[in-house]
Amino acid sequence: MDDDSPQGRWERRTQASLALGSVLFLAAYAVLVLAHGLPSVWRDGCVAVMLAAWGMFAVDYGVRWRLSGEGFRFVRGHWLDTVVLALPLLRPLRVVKLYEAVLRRHGGPRLALYARVIVYAGLSVLLLGFAGALAIYQLEHAAPGATIRTFGDSVWWTCSTLATVGYGDVTPVTFWGRTIAVGLMGCGLALLGAVTGSFSSWLLQVLAREGDERPPGS
Amino acid sequence: MDDDSPQGRWERRTQASLALGSVLFLAAYAVLVLAHGLPSVWRDGCVAVMLAAWGMFAVDYGVRWRLSGEGFRFVRGHWLDTVVLALPLLRPLRVVKLYEAVLRRHGGPRLALYARVIVYAGLSVLLLGFAGALAIYQLEHAAPGATIRTFGDSVWWTCSTLATVGYGDVTPVTFWGRTIAVGLMGCGLALLGAVTGSFSSWLLQVLAREGDERPPGS
Amino acid sequence: MDDDSPQGRWERRTQASLALGSVLFLAAYAVLVLAHGLPSVWRDGCVAVMLAAWGMFAVDYGVRWRLSGEGFRFVRGHWLDTVVLALPLLRPLRVVKLYEAVLRRHGGPRLALYARVIVYAGLSVLLLGFAGALAIYQLEHAAPGATIRTFGDSVWWTCSTLATVGYGDVTPVTFWGRTIAVGLMGCGLALLGAVTGSFSSWLLQVLAREGDERPPGS
Amino acid sequence: MDDDSPQGRWERRTQASLALGSVLFLAAYAVLVLAHGLPSVWRDGCVAVMLAAWGMFAVDYGVRWRLSGEGFRFVRGHWLDTVVLALPLLRPLRVVKLYEAVLRRHGGPRLALYARVIVYAGLSVLLLGFAGALAIYQLEHAAPGATIRTFGDSVWWTCSTLATVGYGDVTPVTFWGRTIAVGLMGCGLALLGAVTGSFSSWLLQVLAREGDERPPGS
Repeated sequence: MDDDSPQGRWERRTQASLALGSVLFLAAYAVLVLAHGLPSVWRDGCVAVMLAAWGMFAVDYGVRWRLSGEGFRFVRGHWLDTVVLALPLLRPLRVVKLYEAVLRRHGGPRLALYARVIVYAGLSVLLLGFAGALAIYQLEHAAPGATIRTFGDSVWWTCSTLATVGYGDVTPVTFWGRTIAVGLMGCGLALLGAVTGSFSSWLLQVLAREGDERPPGS
Repeated sequence: MDDDSPQGRWERRTQASLALGSVLFLAAYAVLVLAHGLPSVWRDGCVAVMLAAWGMFAVDYGVRWRLSGEGFRFVRGHWLDTVVLALPLLRPLRVVKLYEAVLRRHGGPRLALYARVIVYAGLSVLLLGFAGALAIYQLEHAAPGATIRTFGDSVWWTCSTLATVGYGDVTPVTFWGRTIAVGLMGCGLALLGAVTGSFSSWLLQVLAREGDERPPGS
Repeated sequence: MDDDSPQGRWERRTQASLALGSVLFLAAYAVLVLAHGLPSVWRDGCVAVMLAAWGMFAVDYGVRWRLSGEGFRFVRGHWLDTVVLALPLLRPLRVVKLYEAVLRRHGGPRLALYARVIVYAGLSVLLLGFAGALAIYQLEHAAPGATIRTFGDSVWWTCSTLATVGYGDVTPVTFWGRTIAVGLMGCGLALLGAVTGSFSSWLLQVLAREGDERPPGS
Repeated sequence: MDDDSPQGRWERRTQASLALGSVLFLAAYAVLVLAHGLPSVWRDGCVAVMLAAWGMFAVDYGVRWRLSGEGFRFVRGHWLDTVVLALPLLRPLRVVKLYEAVLRRHGGPRLALYARVIVYAGLSVLLLGFAGALAIYQLEHAAPGATIRTFGDSVWWTCSTLATVGYGDVTPVTFWGRTIAVGLMGCGLALLGAVTGSFSSWLLQVLAREGDERPPGS
């Protein structure tokens, strides 16, 4: 980050705009999906914002690829950016990078390993879940025989799915809804497994330390 | 605990009353929720008990903050107390502290690490689950289209949720019911993960030791 | 086991009869629950077998307590036997001990740690699941509004519960059915967690070893 | 693999044909199950392909048993091949071996341990899930009272089962469908547990390394 290479300078300069872009992308998508009675001009505005954010990421990706001079190896080394480029729903995952940058800038105490995992994976799950709930709502709420009719249902379904509880009181019924649901299960469960595992390890560590700190004469 | 600082003395003196207060709080809430035909005066009594317990915790929190002389750092360092102060439903978690104190007073053999995790996390899950079942029952049993109609349904729902089984034969349908349900999933699953993981590790350890103890000639 | 103390000799002598007793207990319970048109005399025979097996365990427990000369500490040290004594449904768990004894007698190669965990916990889950399915069937199949109507439904429900999948197409509806279901979740999930965890560790170990064995020049 | 023993040479020679055979077996089964209006001659062709593939594996198994000169120990040492021989649905698991062979032939960089587990277990889950979805569809779609009516339903059911979410909106109702479902839960969950556990470990490792690489002055 502190290096003076062209890539380093490019990343420092574009950082804030890209983070803003990812937040705007998600916000525009949320408005587009959730605001039903929106006048046509607003809807077009939202689409424009989304396209602009998308274009921004594409340009950033292209410039960084060019600067790296790595060819195909760049695609493999930056798979998260590649995924984000291809699937706009996952774009908010870039926010994780911003969060890390903010933490660094403040020069706060370095996070412990478990805290890092919980922050990274937890934030990813949160963003992924929100984007997933939006997408499921958009695809399902007007389908014939749908049980997910409101955005509240969609969020409830997402939470019960990510916790692997799966009540089944509301479930996606369309092909694309189910496809996104399977993707959400795949990504979400792996990430949540990391969060739960880290939390358990952290709890074990805290309790082990507390046991050691107890004075022997007590 | 054995130190003679003002904080140490304060904690030793208030310990028993706070534990009693947390049990009373939960009991009063349970009576308030479960006893339908209760005369008005009793209901007011329950509310008074809950408010008194709440006030007790607030005073205790304030005094300890004052004595610590730490300012904002106290809030971060005692996050459990802060959470308990804000959300009365979680108050019973303080009982875990009492249990620990009782264990210490009896000077019994120090618990092994896995036993500590199982006791702490298991008891938290139990109390959290009971409070959650009460809250869900209160919010759901009179809602239109509700499937959770009795307290038994609510306990059954809580158990199947905490085990991540999630049958879906009874599910919360109101906004606040679902909000509490999501909170219960989040806390409960992380804690239960700790319990299950500790149990597995303990089983592995026991079986490994048993294997070593077996005489070579057998 | 090879010691010549009274306890050791008692255990060696009663071992086979107790194992037979536990199998008979489960078999008699299965016949009692599953065979509907059984003549009254057979049913009484089944009950007699169950009572006899129960009595055998009670006598064994009493004699071992006496021989140990430990008083209350015996109850804590042999908690599995105590649980088995109180809850006849869990009696088959004693079979695990027999299995271990058979393995030892054959002097076969000592099982690896993960294999031991998988055998112990897996067998416990199997027996617990079978006993649980029987109990759920007995309690539910005639209840008003029941969805578990055949023993096949009960086994299917048990499997989907132990795997934490929980479809909810069939679920217990009676108070005691749900109580046993919660017990099954508690015990079964902890044990299954141990099995799954051991399997993962074993897979990791096998693949790590395989990776090392690969000749460097390949 | 590089040894010049008869077994080594046999394996090198038959490798490609066996892999092709396993793919053909799965493809023929998929066509047989999914293509309803297929003329009789095509169906017979599919069955012939399946039988031929089966025969190929049987011959391969027999020859390798003969060459090993190990008798019964061969069955225990090659349990995967034995399982595959008995249960044609699991045959595609052999593809995992091919994948490994292709990786080796290309002499690419050796996969890290976690990547190996994820590739092996993940591919197994994928193939097992596809075969399971086919079998469930074949057994269920014409059963009275069935909820799994299309192949899409079957795939959706398989995904929600393997993730232990288990919505229960579609579930198998026939005896054999439920039997296969239980097998799928057993195998799938253990393998998925390995994938999730490895992913968590890998994430922890990546984040731990990233934390170390950060320059101290940043």
